[in-house]
Amino acid sequence: MCGIVGIVSSADVSYSLYCALYALQHRGQDSAGIVTTDYGPMVTHRKQGLVSSIFDEDTLKKLTGTVGIGHVRYPTTGCSTAENIQPFFFTFKSHHIALAHNGNITNYTTLRDMFEEKGQIFLTTSDTEIISKIIIDELLQNHTIEDAVRRCMRIIEGSYSVVLLIDGELYAFRDPFGLRPLGFGKTAEGGLIVASESVAVEGIGGTFERDILPGEMIHVDQNRTIRFVECAKAEHYAYCIFEYIYFARSDSVIDGALVYDVRRSIGSSLAQEAPVDADIVCTIPDSGTAYAVGYSEQSNISFVECLIKNRYMGRTFIMPSQEMRERSVRIKLNPISQHVRDRAVILVDDSIVRGTTSRMIVESVRHAGAAEVHMRIGSPIIKEPCYFGVDMATRDQLIGSEKECDEICKQIGATSLHYASLNALVDAIGIAETDLCTGCVTGTYPFPVGRKPCKRTTIQYM
Amino acid sequence: MCGIVGIVSSADVSYSLYCALYALQHRGQDSAGIVTTDYGPMVTHRKQGLVSSIFDEDTLKKLTGTVGIGHVRYPTTGCSTAENIQPFFFTFKSHHIALAHNGNITNYTTLRDMFEEKGQIFLTTSDTEIISKIIIDELLQNHTIEDAVRRCMRIIEGSYSVVLLIDGELYAFRDPFGLRPLGFGKTAEGGLIVASESVAVEGIGGTFERDILPGEMIHVDQNRTIRFVECAKAEHYAYCIFEYIYFARSDSVIDGALVYDVRRSIGSSLAQEAPVDADIVCTIPDSGTAYAVGYSEQSNISFVECLIKNRYMGRTFIMPSQEMRERSVRIKLNPISQHVRDRAVILVDDSIVRGTTSRMIVESVRHAGAAEVHMRIGSPIIKEPCYFGVDMATRDQLIGSEKECDEICKQIGATSLHYASLNALVDAIGIAETDLCTGCVTGTYPFPVGRKPCKRTTIQYM
Amino acid sequence: MCGIVGIVSSADVSYSLYCALYALQHRGQDSAGIVTTDYGPMVTHRKQGLVSSIFDEDTLKKLTGTVGIGHVRYPTTGCSTAENIQPFFFTFKSHHIALAHNGNITNYTTLRDMFEEKGQIFLTTSDTEIISKIIIDELLQNHTIEDAVRRCMRIIEGSYSVVLLIDGELYAFRDPFGLRPLGFGKTAEGGLIVASESVAVEGIGGTFERDILPGEMIHVDQNRTIRFVECAKAEHYAYCIFEYIYFARSDSVIDGALVYDVRRSIGSSLAQEAPVDADIVCTIPDSGTAYAVGYSEQSNISFVECLIKNRYMGRTFIMPSQEMRERSVRIKLNPISQHVRDRAVILVDDSIVRGTTSRMIVESVRHAGAAEVHMRIGSPIIKEPCYFGVDMATRDQLIGSEKECDEICKQIGATSLHYASLNALVDAIGIAETDLCTGCVTGTYPFPVGRKPCKRTTIQYM
Amino acid sequence: MCGIVGIVSSADVSYSLYCALYALQHRGQDSAGIVTTDYGPMVTHRKQGLVSSIFDEDTLKKLTGTVGIGHVRYPTTGCSTAENIQPFFFTFKSHHIALAHNGNITNYTTLRDMFEEKGQIFLTTSDTEIISKIIIDELLQNHTIEDAVRRCMRIIEGSYSVVLLIDGELYAFRDPFGLRPLGFGKTAEGGLIVASESVAVEGIGGTFERDILPGEMIHVDQNRTIRFVECAKAEHYAYCIFEYIYFARSDSVIDGALVYDVRRSIGSSLAQEAPVDADIVCTIPDSGTAYAVGYSEQSNISFVECLIKNRYMGRTFIMPSQEMRERSVRIKLNPISQHVRDRAVILVDDSIVRGTTSRMIVESVRHAGAAEVHMRIGSPIIKEPCYFGVDMATRDQLIGSEKECDEICKQIGATSLHYASLNALVDAIGIAETDLCTGCVTGTYPFPVGRKPCKRTTIQYM
Repeated sequence: MCGIVGIVSSADVSYSLYCALYALQHRGQDSAGIVTTDYGPMVTHRKQGLVSSIFDEDTLKKLTGTVGIGHVRYPTTGCSTAENIQPFFFTFKSHHIALAHNGNITNYTTLRDMFEEKGQIFLTTSDTEIISKIIIDELLQNHTIEDAVRRCMRIIEGSYSVVLLIDGELYAFRDPFGLRPLGFGKTAEGGLIVASESVAVEGIGGTFERDILPGEMIHVDQNRTIRFVECAKAEHYAYCIFEYIYFARSDSVIDGALVYDVRRSIGSSLAQEAPVDADIVCTIPDSGTAYAVGYSEQSNISFVECLIKNRYMGRTFIMPSQEMRERSVRIKLNPISQHVRDRAVILVDDSIVRGTTSRMIVESVRHAGAAEVHMRIGSPIIKEPCYFGVDMATRDQLIGSEKECDEICKQIGATSLHYASLNALVDAIGIAETDLCTGCVTGTYPFPVGRKPCKRTTIQYM
Repeated sequence: MCGIVGIVSSADVSYSLYCALYALQHRGQDSAGIVTTDYGPMVTHRKQGLVSSIFDEDTLKKLTGTVGIGHVRYPTTGCSTAENIQPFFFTFKSHHIALAHNGNITNYTTLRDMFEEKGQIFLTTSDTEIISKIIIDELLQNHTIEDAVRRCMRIIEGSYSVVLLIDGELYAFRDPFGLRPLGFGKTAEGGLIVASESVAVEGIGGTFERDILPGEMIHVDQNRTIRFVECAKAEHYAYCIFEYIYFARSDSVIDGALVYDVRRSIGSSLAQEAPVDADIVCTIPDSGTAYAVGYSEQSNISFVECLIKNRYMGRTFIMPSQEMRERSVRIKLNPISQHVRDRAVILVDDSIVRGTTSRMIVESVRHAGAAEVHMRIGSPIIKEPCYFGVDMATRDQLIGSEKECDEICKQIGATSLHYASLNALVDAIGIAETDLCTGCVTGTYPFPVGRKPCKRTTIQYM
Repeated sequence: MCGIVGIVSSADVSYSLYCALYALQHRGQDSAGIVTTDYGPMVTHRKQGLVSSIFDEDTLKKLTGTVGIGHVRYPTTGCSTAENIQPFFFTFKSHHIALAHNGNITNYTTLRDMFEEKGQIFLTTSDTEIISKIIIDELLQNHTIEDAVRRCMRIIEGSYSVVLLIDGELYAFRDPFGLRPLGFGKTAEGGLIVASESVAVEGIGGTFERDILPGEMIHVDQNRTIRFVECAKAEHYAYCIFEYIYFARSDSVIDGALVYDVRRSIGSSLAQEAPVDADIVCTIPDSGTAYAVGYSEQSNISFVECLIKNRYMGRTFIMPSQEMRERSVRIKLNPISQHVRDRAVILVDDSIVRGTTSRMIVESVRHAGAAEVHMRIGSPIIKEPCYFGVDMATRDQLIGSEKECDEICKQIGATSLHYASLNALVDAIGIAETDLCTGCVTGTYPFPVGRKPCKRTTIQYM
Repeated sequence: MCGIVGIVSSADVSYSLYCALYALQHRGQDSAGIVTTDYGPMVTHRKQGLVSSIFDEDTLKKLTGTVGIGHVRYPTTGCSTAENIQPFFFTFKSHHIALAHNGNITNYTTLRDMFEEKGQIFLTTSDTEIISKIIIDELLQNHTIEDAVRRCMRIIEGSYSVVLLIDGELYAFRDPFGLRPLGFGKTAEGGLIVASESVAVEGIGGTFERDILPGEMIHVDQNRTIRFVECAKAEHYAYCIFEYIYFARSDSVIDGALVYDVRRSIGSSLAQEAPVDADIVCTIPDSGTAYAVGYSEQSNISFVECLIKNRYMGRTFIMPSQEMRERSVRIKLNPISQHVRDRAVILVDDSIVRGTTSRMIVESVRHAGAAEVHMRIGSPIIKEPCYFGVDMATRDQLIGSEKECDEICKQIGATSLHYASLNALVDAIGIAETDLCTGCVTGTYPFPVGRKPCKRTTIQYM
């Protein structure tokens, strides 16, 4: 998972890119980068860490240019990543090129072999480099960037939303299935912004226009003239359901649906699908809140906060041993005994991945005095991995890959457990099931994919 | 404002101190420190930054000892602070002493002059050093620590909750007015923990017992025998109302009242005191949430989230100019247009200090399409500064110091504005008004205090 | 200028590579890197800074492998360099390849255009990437590394000493003119080491064998069998005189001559060519010492230290203004008044580049009381830039490019000034003038070269 | 060991203090600090590391003030030091005070007990804090700083050169025995500089005047009027011989003698005391050079460099094992085989402490082919520790504490070994033996001292 942004304006764009990346920070906390230009040589700053720690006022001042792209990256485990920091950039002949990518190319190995056969060296294991090789190959034949994008759409399998900068012109495109989101809007100064989510457009004070269509390319030339091109047309789309379930920010509008209301609506359906005579509805913050609100509204059971999240909890919390790991849930989510004691509590969350956290939360709420703990989940059981860029657990870690609802309920220690039906989910999104990718819950992907092994590692960094 | 903790156990306490400081992080994000010991020489680690960045596994391992104290510090503006990092420690004769302090000594200058007259050098401008001088002075006369605490309570004016470590024995005490909170509980291993808030006790998996009484001292000797001593008795108490309004975590129980429910109850009163025919009740997260929930429950107007907080927003967000500063509220709190458009919205917050943020939020919600924006505040108008450790704005920055509700409403651009009454607040807390410090809203303090100037700065650090 | 090293052994080589880079630190203080392997995937650590600050015990432990290469880089001014950190590495098909390079390719632009025409992307502006493209191009045609090296020697113009690692086999080669040094020796464990200077071999406790011949390639396969191949044969050689004059360490033996004794012998010639009736011979440390010793021996004038060098002087000394810059020579080289007062002093240095430092030293020695200051220089006047990797000043900064000895003497304020003759230099080295590159002092280079512009910059790093 | 400096000028002194500390860097590489003022509040910057890494242009700009003091500290082993970073500063009543100290107070424990009895808290284990307590105690009785200095000289045993800043007035004084050096001079702008060594005066472009006399105090008031006061008069002096042997820079003039020439003269005496029929005289750089030059001049045996020092060798060189530790001498000091092969070599060094380095050097020179290795040492055998601030090895590590010259010669593997006689040393310095502290070589100290234990550690820093 990653977040991308591209901005063309009449003034320097570095501060707006910074704000946009801040708004997209939830899509990737491992590293971030910005490339800017003024129709010539480029300037860049890329680093590991959060946006807040990577950029300072001085750096933003030096990132001059009225056109630019940015990227936040999710920490991918297993594969070497230090070399894959984005945006990716290079010069080719007289061209200055930079690009950033969100998604996962499932036929990476095939494409890499193909280009190595032509004598291309790959310096990273990033999907982005594949895209750059295609662009170069087309430029070499005096083809246009549009030709290159069309070729990407013909030969790349997988998900990809891309922003591309070449000699100060901005291109952005989205794979024909629309697996990863990408939209655009106007900046307050009349410029253009493309970004993974609408919140980035709003974050810079702009006005969100619409999503880029699957297979569509948007091009802003040096006169800031905007051009839309349909580069490919799939028979159906495959919008990712997990963006709605968990990944996207609740205040984003993705492919026409406000994420918050999709979640609230699922919560409402959950109350209908699995009613329970309880005293309070409680969210597991922050991801369960919209679902819980919907459940409460439909069931007329009071929405009461029972678990208070520690706002300072980061990835670095130290847990020296298993016993302490268990204790850590108390630091992260502290139950309010006074709210749960002797009560039947409905706990609402978005999904269950490994099940360990759910088990510890249920235990913690029981320990705080709850009489009953009914768990309601805003998604169907996650049974399969994602091949298109969402970093779920591997198959053997997914509690849902082998177990049914009853067993899971027992394992997490809940009084009852219910998952939202696929129907409820599809209805809430408001898009036909055939235009959604439901692979992680049905095992049916938009096109055949094999289990992707970790890509060939160039080198290990110490 | 600060957070303090002290733990005595049968095993190493550094990890528990770390967890407790994590739970108290909201009381101070400027620096943190731990001192541990095993009835002899002490070990320490103190640094600027968040708890998560200051301590790592290696450091915690080196902080050996079954007794220890910890501190998180709030960034105080104006006075030099680099020298004032806590806990404070020193050896005196054969004694190893460390202490940490939450509060503000209002007769600091008088006491400092008194001790300088005796030839004492002050190396910091911290209140804590005053307390250490008193302890030394008593030890010198072969008096006990209990004597020293009694003397503190006689001569110190102001607020102070203190944890003190001497030769492996733990002492904790609270000023006779109880201005700053301090409670204790049992650890899972049967040890003792004292901490600013009950969440720290729960955060280490312990069981909260009760608050330390104003004027009370608790002492745990080397055999872990616990002793309670009433060292002073004021005619009335002066529990801080602002802990309930804003400062303490909502899941803490302070002086008998669950903070969340105090806030919810005020919200409920607000709905009665200032009802309005609106479509939705919306919180300004996170501080307004409990109030908003109470308002919604009482008014039967739906609680709907309309402002989504960026979870990655830190102190370091760059705002190069005024115009951009205005824009920054969009990054921090993004309104969901779909939830507010053409609606009458009740926005609930805990308090208004300068008024600038409130103005920007109201504007942002209007810009997102709200038809009416009714502001409801969970506290009376803050008119006066706090002299006891809460870092509010200075008097001329407080929007409430000169303005009445009507004017403030106009200035922040709200359709209507209402502040909770003092009665509602007192009722919600459940403690007699005479036992509360309401100085910031009434101007009446528990005892006469002058405007405290910035203390003499020893030196400026580059 | 750079330093390179490659080691094949029976045990882990990272510590030996580290020691070797330490011994070569004078060849480059900007950055350093190591790549190691065990006939498969590679491990690397590369960073800006001195060898001492880049590597620690933990890092060296993680750099496992019995084969490896290392590099120290000189800070090149003007061109973007952050991307050019070495060793350079990549995978190609199933091959793991790393290489490090010392030298300067004068037909870089032509070669880059040629490979871009073939669709190759250049991600750096480093000469090393050109070499890697040639290797790939040959591998693609199923040619051997030997073929690739032969092709390098055919098409590359300029200087290059290279160490190359491919699938655990080590290759090293030197351009047909021998412009940059490269030698090899045995390690204490019976392995092989190639390095820019013999001091690196001695630094790891090994035994220096001989220089790699111009146009020669050395290859160590996976069985540690060593193979020598003559890949090209130039009609004459072009060993760099500046390595002897200044760049190489005095304790290195380069192409058969001990650098210290070359310098001492030039000093001796200087005493014959330009005798002067003076009281003492004084070195400008450290570069002038061997010359001064030779001068003293030949002239029988006492060698006395008069300028004491501050051993802690680094690149970071702050000089806020021109006036302070002048003062800085006092910090760097403090004259001993007692040794120079009222005396005729002979100051000996290796060369004069811009002339500003010489002027300040002469002034400083006069200020300390010297009656006469006779400057003697261990090289002919440097009139022309170097195109083969030595970073002298640009032509218009070279004091010798326009001025004759008399004018320079006047400008630096010396009583008299004499430069060593080319004959003295050639005699001292003991190699025929036709086999030396004397371009910087004669303007005659081993082959025609144009003024090399700064290479196309990919991007500017903030 | 430490270095101190104080400057009063008409313009900002921070840059001059920085230059002076650079010139004194050899006296302490552990930490450094500067305090400046303009007759009021002070500004400071103190940190661990070298002067070059601690200060940057921005920091120096912020260190405003026309009066200031600075300090470099030697890493003391065994005792906790993080708290002892200097200069030390504090406010007392209305006074702003800072001080820095070089030396060692041998009755520290007695004095500390005395002041603790009076109720003083000690926050550090630094001698400097003792001095500050004395100053406070006198100010409290309305005595002057001069009175305080007189009292220091009465009650402190040990060595101390001190610079003191109080309300913008500079004081400097030296203990009655003159154990540690301290001199003063004029700055280029007509101001005053006091510093541990004359090189610091020259380093800022100033003119050295003379040493501060033992027992003398210098005072510069706010009108920059300079006053000299004899505060104490000892019956004899005790100038440290080790400053001449090793510690001071060779270009410093200390108590009337140029250090370089003291060393050269000892070298000359060595040639007379222990002549040997050898081929070359070789220095162990850098400390042996002046001695070797003297030996060569007297003996007429050629001075030839045979050991080349790696200029980049720092404290951080990694030596994972004993075997590698032995190897490290090759990295640090590389022998030139061509200069020593089959020759009788005289190696000259300043002193032998543990003997291990000497043994490795002798072995390395023999390994490089030397036929004979005659070691000549510029000091008598070091038999006893120093109690006055020179950090020699502890007694049981001193090779000379139990062994005679013959045994040491055998242990280090030399062909012959000779130490300079005490007479030669005293003659070279030109000061009566009764006015020198020769404790480390004779065991006779200027006054009775006990073995000083490590001072009470306040706390251990993680």
